[in-house]
Amino acid sequence: MSNIKPSLAKGTRDFSPQEMVKRNYIFDTIKTVFKKYGYSEIQTPSMENLSTLTGKYGDEGDKLIFKILNSGDFLSKVKPELLAQANSNAVISSISEKALRYDLTVPFARYVVMHQNDISLPFKRFQVQPVWRADRPQKGRYREFYQCDVDVVGSDSLLNEAEFILIYQEALSDLGLKDFTIKINNRKILSGIAEVVGKPELIIDMTVAIDKLDKIGLDGVIKELLERGFTEADIDRLKPVILLEGTNEQKLDSLKTVLSVSETGLKGVEEIETVFDYLSSMLKASSSINPNVELDITLARGLNYYTGCIFEVKTNEVAMGSIGGGGRYDDLTGMFGLKNLTGVGVSFGADRIYDVLQELNLFPESAAAGTRVLISNFDKEAERYALPILQQLRGANIATELYPSSAKLKKQMSYADDKNIPYVILIGSEEMGNGVLTLKDMKSGQQDKLTVAAIIDQLKFN
Amino acid sequence: MSNIKPSLAKGTRDFSPQEMVKRNYIFDTIKTVFKKYGYSEIQTPSMENLSTLTGKYGDEGDKLIFKILNSGDFLSKVKPELLAQANSNAVISSISEKALRYDLTVPFARYVVMHQNDISLPFKRFQVQPVWRADRPQKGRYREFYQCDVDVVGSDSLLNEAEFILIYQEALSDLGLKDFTIKINNRKILSGIAEVVGKPELIIDMTVAIDKLDKIGLDGVIKELLERGFTEADIDRLKPVILLEGTNEQKLDSLKTVLSVSETGLKGVEEIETVFDYLSSMLKASSSINPNVELDITLARGLNYYTGCIFEVKTNEVAMGSIGGGGRYDDLTGMFGLKNLTGVGVSFGADRIYDVLQELNLFPESAAAGTRVLISNFDKEAERYALPILQQLRGANIATELYPSSAKLKKQMSYADDKNIPYVILIGSEEMGNGVLTLKDMKSGQQDKLTVAAIIDQLKFN
Repeated sequence: MSNIKPSLAKGTRDFSPQEMVKRNYIFDTIKTVFKKYGYSEIQTPSMENLSTLTGKYGDEGDKLIFKILNSGDFLSKVKPELLAQANSNAVISSISEKALRYDLTVPFARYVVMHQNDISLPFKRFQVQPVWRADRPQKGRYREFYQCDVDVVGSDSLLNEAEFILIYQEALSDLGLKDFTIKINNRKILSGIAEVVGKPELIIDMTVAIDKLDKIGLDGVIKELLERGFTEADIDRLKPVILLEGTNEQKLDSLKTVLSVSETGLKGVEEIETVFDYLSSMLKASSSINPNVELDITLARGLNYYTGCIFEVKTNEVAMGSIGGGGRYDDLTGMFGLKNLTGVGVSFGADRIYDVLQELNLFPESAAAGTRVLISNFDKEAERYALPILQQLRGANIATELYPSSAKLKKQMSYADDKNIPYVILIGSEEMGNGVLTLKDMKSGQQDKLTVAAIIDQLKFN
Repeated sequence: MSNIKPSLAKGTRDFSPQEMVKRNYIFDTIKTVFKKYGYSEIQTPSMENLSTLTGKYGDEGDKLIFKILNSGDFLSKVKPELLAQANSNAVISSISEKALRYDLTVPFARYVVMHQNDISLPFKRFQVQPVWRADRPQKGRYREFYQCDVDVVGSDSLLNEAEFILIYQEALSDLGLKDFTIKINNRKILSGIAEVVGKPELIIDMTVAIDKLDKIGLDGVIKELLERGFTEADIDRLKPVILLEGTNEQKLDSLKTVLSVSETGLKGVEEIETVFDYLSSMLKASSSINPNVELDITLARGLNYYTGCIFEVKTNEVAMGSIGGGGRYDDLTGMFGLKNLTGVGVSFGADRIYDVLQELNLFPESAAAGTRVLISNFDKEAERYALPILQQLRGANIATELYPSSAKLKKQMSYADDKNIPYVILIGSEEMGNGVLTLKDMKSGQQDKLTVAAIIDQLKFN
């Protein structure tokens, strides 16, 4: 056995009891909303066949997939000449058949294709599981992190898009966020703009450039557009679109004019309008706060695969990247040979949401709830006296501990403090004599003399 | 992009919505009990440094650890002569620095050592996470499976042992199991027996043999003992111990006689008696069923590391291996240089418990609870009418879906059936006219005419 000081693998994290309670609070809150909207949980394995993952995330992505070494004499399958060349890339497929999940979308597509005879469409699923990426670790970027995805496949209704906006609204509000913006765009509007400018083939270059408006400003965007093959004349036509202002209605009106000759562009506008219509109908009789939805045609997130609406969520209370995003992809399962199955989904950035709640001090006290009461243990006699009481409290569903051996009061109190246990029951000879225990409130320091029944009453409803 | 029919990696599983609900039911039930007994959740990363895991599970275990291939040009660090020899074992440490978690115990030991300055002892933690083993897959044995562990370190009190018995009792009862046996033994009793027979060095051989009593019978055990170096005279002394019968008290009395010359053996008997004392004191004022605890000195589970009490749980309702087990290990963190920290813990076999509940039909109907009600969608007008109702129902915390497009009634009904949705709301022209909707109970087929408010009342308390 080695005896070295152990360390964590680079880019990975332990989660302490305090962190777990907060993380579970976030996941549970979000999952509750998913369920209310009719989504069901699935899980897929951590490891997939390497062939399932390769080629789905681009060349850069492929490099970031963690590959698992075959068991046994893995080198025996490698051609000697490849070994002699020490060519790592050429050897991979011979020594590794499996890899760790890189995201939840490709495994979900595999799931849908493999289980297509068992699931009924539309299939509404959510999935909250870790993914692994061999990225260079840095602040806020880990090699193992949780994704929290909700998707529906097999329904082209824009009701789904409207519901995702409400899911964001409800989940983030339930978590205590007060000021956040749900941005929406549509790939077809971007296609329409590129079409109208006369450069449909440059749609990716165009959107990559205008996506940076926030960061590099209009001059920066224009510079980049020129570099990417647009002319001054093109830019004159693009400028009013890039600088689109006003309410969502005003923006949609302007776009209708600009895109009047593009069938695709107008379809995109119509889709956004339909989503807005759904929203206002759904919220008609509702007392909940209307979501703050903003049409933002500079939003280009994941354009490579999104084909319809695109979403991104930003909090306005803390400086932080997006805390969620998603969109519609018309051919999710095509990569596995099942054509024409449309999907739409969004995800929540749990790590960032954690940081936001932490910074805004939004974790409720109940999200620290562990043991409610510690029974002190001064000697064998008090311990024996405490044992049935311990089970009585637990029988009333009160999380209770008896300090497991007799120890100095100070030590037991600091144990309660460290574990954030709000109450301590003190059992001394007086208490054993008259059956009235001392309940100490660790926050206020107040001590009350109470019977076990009275303590149960107080702790149950506190 | 490849276009092949996708498959699962060997020995791994997808979990469908129906399976997830049942799995979550098991995990949630067990976690609730852990918390009630003062245990807190932690999580550790899926990947650990290979050096953290190697040498902890024996040579066979080391082979079953899934190793992760280093990123980038992993062959560049391998000495050319090793490559030329194609010596897989000699190459591993050069091309793999990380590996997948093999169990939850070693990562927990690493956690305790790394965070020793932040945690206060005794540290009571539970952990429910997947582990990975490169075992040959077979029925009931997977390469990825969940472990569900609860341990305390830094307390030598036998109260902990007693509490684990109650945790088993409570969690398994809560899951609906009625007849199960919690077996207990103590390593020190086994040591004492080997000592009394005069073959302390053969303790492992002795326990491995008598552990098989159930499977191979007394004659088989005797044959194996002879093969493993025991004499006929030894066996004469062992026989009454192997065949120990009667109540726990009778067994303990017999052992006291047999082990009267072994200090270690008597200590083991005393530890078991103390655990039984704790149990009866704790249960004195309790109305819950007394656990069925059985002293079984043939129980030798994990003898390599257990130093005190040993546990194993078997259901008597279904033929199935053990559904839980554990014990005390006096030197959990010694492997990472932190000496003299005692630990004790048990685990639940979630996959086996799943199979038992399935076979006994013990999953409650609520463990299938997904969407409560589907609103049908016949045309655009009915859809528009339904939208605010959809949000009203969700506002009352009723999981509700609107079928996302107009479709034939049959299709919508079979969607509800497939998803086990218990109610469907039908909205036709009559309903839109008078505001009274039709609520169909999918099980009984009964249809009621009700207002939205009445539907909310009925679904909330049903």
